[in-house]
Amino acid sequence: MSPTRRRLVGGLDLGGTKIQAVVLDGRRHVVAEAKRPTPARGGGKGVVEALAATLTEACAGVGVEPRHLAGVGVGSPGAIDSRRGVVSGARNLPGGGAPIRMTAGLKKLAGTPAYIDNDVTVGVHAEYVLGAAQSARSLLGVWWGTGVGGGVILDGKKWEGRGAAGELGHVVVKVGGARCTCGRFGCLEAYAGRGAMELRARHLHKRGHKTDLFKIMEKRGRTRLQSGIWARALDHEDRMAVELIDRAIEAMGAGIASAVNLLDVSSVVIGGGLGTRLGESYVKRIREAMQPHLFVDDNPPVVALAALGDLGGAIGAALLVPSGRPRRTTKR
Amino acid sequence: MSPTRRRLVGGLDLGGTKIQAVVLDGRRHVVAEAKRPTPARGGGKGVVEALAATLTEACAGVGVEPRHLAGVGVGSPGAIDSRRGVVSGARNLPGGGAPIRMTAGLKKLAGTPAYIDNDVTVGVHAEYVLGAAQSARSLLGVWWGTGVGGGVILDGKKWEGRGAAGELGHVVVKVGGARCTCGRFGCLEAYAGRGAMELRARHLHKRGHKTDLFKIMEKRGRTRLQSGIWARALDHEDRMAVELIDRAIEAMGAGIASAVNLLDVSSVVIGGGLGTRLGESYVKRIREAMQPHLFVDDNPPVVALAALGDLGGAIGAALLVPSGRPRRTTKR
Repeated sequence: MSPTRRRLVGGLDLGGTKIQAVVLDGRRHVVAEAKRPTPARGGGKGVVEALAATLTEACAGVGVEPRHLAGVGVGSPGAIDSRRGVVSGARNLPGGGAPIRMTAGLKKLAGTPAYIDNDVTVGVHAEYVLGAAQSARSLLGVWWGTGVGGGVILDGKKWEGRGAAGELGHVVVKVGGARCTCGRFGCLEAYAGRGAMELRARHLHKRGHKTDLFKIMEKRGRTRLQSGIWARALDHEDRMAVELIDRAIEAMGAGIASAVNLLDVSSVVIGGGLGTRLGESYVKRIREAMQPHLFVDDNPPVVALAALGDLGGAIGAALLVPSGRPRRTTKR
Repeated sequence: MSPTRRRLVGGLDLGGTKIQAVVLDGRRHVVAEAKRPTPARGGGKGVVEALAATLTEACAGVGVEPRHLAGVGVGSPGAIDSRRGVVSGARNLPGGGAPIRMTAGLKKLAGTPAYIDNDVTVGVHAEYVLGAAQSARSLLGVWWGTGVGGGVILDGKKWEGRGAAGELGHVVVKVGGARCTCGRFGCLEAYAGRGAMELRARHLHKRGHKTDLFKIMEKRGRTRLQSGIWARALDHEDRMAVELIDRAIEAMGAGIASAVNLLDVSSVVIGGGLGTRLGESYVKRIREAMQPHLFVDDNPPVVALAALGDLGGAIGAALLVPSGRPRRTTKR
């Protein structure tokens, strides 16, 4: 086997609209990638088949087959049972949230060991290991997209609590505040989640408030206000988009500062679809919105944009594959 | 030396109004205690002398002198430099917040090694080791008094971040909300801190709102609304006291639930002057106020009242003394 083949690992980022695959070499460099749409039907089986096909396509880029990999990791939405390799409650995947035996199915199709964890968790971990927070001792990852996800790394280790830590989106920023998509009131996500922002925009639009958001959406042949649509509307200073983003950033500042006051992490990384799309100038605005709420305001954490961009999730998933040599099966 | 003497440690809880001392035996049982008022003058020197005198008084209860102790720990308000043993910014101590070289002074007067940490940190640690959270894997301690202090223990270890973690009182519960005694807006402490509640009560009272809070205060010869005064007014269903406590509990529910959503700790302990004084029925109300904000609402953490009561701080301070045998000084 050639040196480059000797230690290749695969990573798969499973989203509601697309699957991103990467292959990393032994130095954790991306040596191949592939992207396919997430199937709209076919249930859990269809999802697993699409994951395997995307992985195979990426592997072809370096002339190997999935079975040559040391393993493959998957970052998935939903509630993850990492040990059993099962995903449940992922409503934006085919099957409507029914449990999917992800790692067993993938291992069978790809012929290599499979590992799984939450998509935000692996994305935050990738930024810690290879991205914007490499020198951090402790990190709060803020994944700003449809929702607001969070990941906590303390002294180099992922903090999971009893399995459900990191729900930054459901930190309360306003007692008695807006209804969140989770049904609760006053959550950060109720103000800053792209899903909640879209609901609010539709509501205001119906009531006669002017905006170009939905015109841009239609022009692009979309049915949802994706990150690029918000970015475009903001570039044109669309009043509703500006107001909703202002409100989101105010809430992000409060929610993230709260987490920093509690944990005093050395770094915050802003990632996720909307975070990555809006980029550095909005990270700066979040940093400024945090400042008045920081208890130790002369020693704020570093607040940086995620550095791995769209591939971060897949790279983080690849890092789930345990490092080290393959197990010896020969007897002494 | 008798068996009980062999491993005795001292603990001192330094408050704005009183100093509490304990002596613990090798099984960490309280074998003696003493209490003295915190001196109103004499600067840092006066404070250190009063600490030594209170310790000496407690030691006398078991027939030893401070120099016989394996060491003494101090829990102090203010910003603590544990390594150098210096307290600064403790405005409710004589000297108005000027740095106090606490451990060096105490070691000299008491003749035994001295250790120091934050008063809330040691109180939370005591509950973890000997109190209400002994079976917890991870703990959020909520010290409800003049302010709202917090302490975080994760996987058995105190989490301090870069030295300033645990500022639960300055988690934002209401963007654009009430001004906090720290000068920021919307902090939990702005609603739930006894200091902020007193300011609000005085403000409302001046504007003609009726309350018995200040009558009870005067009757008791006090100048501040201490915890017992609030408890008394609540017993009599004083309307202003009830409304301000309702508001405090709503904010506590949101702020603590936010921390739980982020960290998914297995236990929460409610302590501090007001928490301890109001007791179990108010812990129950805090538990209920958290519930609508918990993201994983079918698996709430245990929320318990601090079990060590008034002595918790001094006991926790005593636990700062490193365990194990005294260092050998004999040559091999």
